[in-house]
Amino acid sequence: MTDRKQPASGEDALIARYFKPLATDPGAFNLADDAAVVKPSGDDIVVTTDAIVEGVHFLADDPPDTVARKALRVNLSDLAAKGATPAGFVLTLALRAADDAWLKPFARGLGEDAGLFGCPLLGGDTVSTPGPQMISITAFGRVPPDKMVHRSGAKPGDRVVVTGTIGDAALGLDILRKGAVAAVLADDVAAKEMLIGRYRVPQPRNALAKAVRDHAHAAMDVSDGLGDDYEILCAIPEDSFDAFAQGAGLAGVAVTSIGTVIADTAAPRFLDVRGREIVLSRLSYSHF
Amino acid sequence: MTDRKQPASGEDALIARYFKPLATDPGAFNLADDAAVVKPSGDDIVVTTDAIVEGVHFLADDPPDTVARKALRVNLSDLAAKGATPAGFVLTLALRAADDAWLKPFARGLGEDAGLFGCPLLGGDTVSTPGPQMISITAFGRVPPDKMVHRSGAKPGDRVVVTGTIGDAALGLDILRKGAVAAVLADDVAAKEMLIGRYRVPQPRNALAKAVRDHAHAAMDVSDGLGDDYEILCAIPEDSFDAFAQGAGLAGVAVTSIGTVIADTAAPRFLDVRGREIVLSRLSYSHF
Repeated sequence: MTDRKQPASGEDALIARYFKPLATDPGAFNLADDAAVVKPSGDDIVVTTDAIVEGVHFLADDPPDTVARKALRVNLSDLAAKGATPAGFVLTLALRAADDAWLKPFARGLGEDAGLFGCPLLGGDTVSTPGPQMISITAFGRVPPDKMVHRSGAKPGDRVVVTGTIGDAALGLDILRKGAVAAVLADDVAAKEMLIGRYRVPQPRNALAKAVRDHAHAAMDVSDGLGDDYEILCAIPEDSFDAFAQGAGLAGVAVTSIGTVIADTAAPRFLDVRGREIVLSRLSYSHF
Repeated sequence: MTDRKQPASGEDALIARYFKPLATDPGAFNLADDAAVVKPSGDDIVVTTDAIVEGVHFLADDPPDTVARKALRVNLSDLAAKGATPAGFVLTLALRAADDAWLKPFARGLGEDAGLFGCPLLGGDTVSTPGPQMISITAFGRVPPDKMVHRSGAKPGDRVVVTGTIGDAALGLDILRKGAVAAVLADDVAAKEMLIGRYRVPQPRNALAKAVRDHAHAAMDVSDGLGDDYEILCAIPEDSFDAFAQGAGLAGVAVTSIGTVIADTAAPRFLDVRGREIVLSRLSYSHF
């Protein structure tokens, strides 16, 4: 994402107007160069990338500011689960047209979230597409050397802990699609708005990143597993659980123990409330 | 891009089969985590991102291995122009379907280029799209602290130097579209193949990165300016030109002086061979 002077093309004008104000980090060089610099300052740089596609991850008539927030937050959620502090992001924006009515609120939402989470825009690329709009973000975080929290590493006896509530986003999507949930909630506008908000604008748990880094043997975000929820699933050793829960409380994040890690090599079984096995056709979302 | 065990979804199987073999860097954690780590090792991390869209930057019937190479090489070209040594990349792949006949050569081409340029796959995201396929890559490079070469910084008297030849890719695209160039070259199959190759598979000038870093006051790649060519345009002080040209020779990269930087604030004028001014309707490519 470059902002060149004389002459300004449509693409350059778009970048100057909407995205340059978001490039607050000195390493972004005001978007006036072909690349950005991340200064490591002794930390490891954690890198994660997630894309959202119109009609797949967001709806064409979703408010543009929520689309921007979702695009950034799904990446922030991965940084949080890895125990990393946000350092910045680059943005690839595939647009059908340079539509000011869409871009203005998109850039506003993106800028507000970049400020809120301390994750400035470092650079990017805008391309035209004849197809669905797509936003791809690569986000960077910092952890002290070798302190990234991995997916693997849980030990027998660890508590399995999840943040927030699981399933809200799926209910919100159902409401937007006028499904069964919309009928059940009928006149409960507040509940419907809350659930729609949970689908459109995830709440990444970056406030919990330090507690995850300090205490978790393993962690991941559950976006591909338990639903489109962007909560953190982590393994906390029993003797650290109180300290972790206290950290979560200070960060304002609800946490729930949902199980214990056991040593076994068999595939997990899922039981209903009467102890009968539930056979699931698939355990996680797959695009293909 | 994560490769989870038990059960393997279509997406997980795709990643395991095609992309895990490319994740040779320890910081990629075999694509088994939600994030990668770039170890800075005292360097600044240079970040660049470029996306290519089917029907815009590549053609639907381009060989998949050349599409992969182009997606990576357009990013490598930016790293080269900034004087950075490739360190790795993350990949966002928006696909209509998990088509083995397309993915297998795509991954092969990507892996060969990752090896050729010392730029391993660190992670990514695969998403489904109902629209044109799109490949977005964010690439990382290393430079010693504060040694990234900027777009600005040219000084009066510097030579303006360009690598390779300019315009080949545009001719190659014209041939693929059966335009005027195809007719002119008629039976010259070798020339046509060369030009098509220049369009489909750019030759990023990473071998020149150190010479650029050591000698250039300013540099950029010309992909958005002089054509789809991915050559380096740089400003070399007169007293360094011989050393720069020698470095270019050792790297096997042709360089041509095309002008001299002068101190002036007026917009540049373009003159034809008789000295008459050429009025250009646009000076660079814009998507919008």
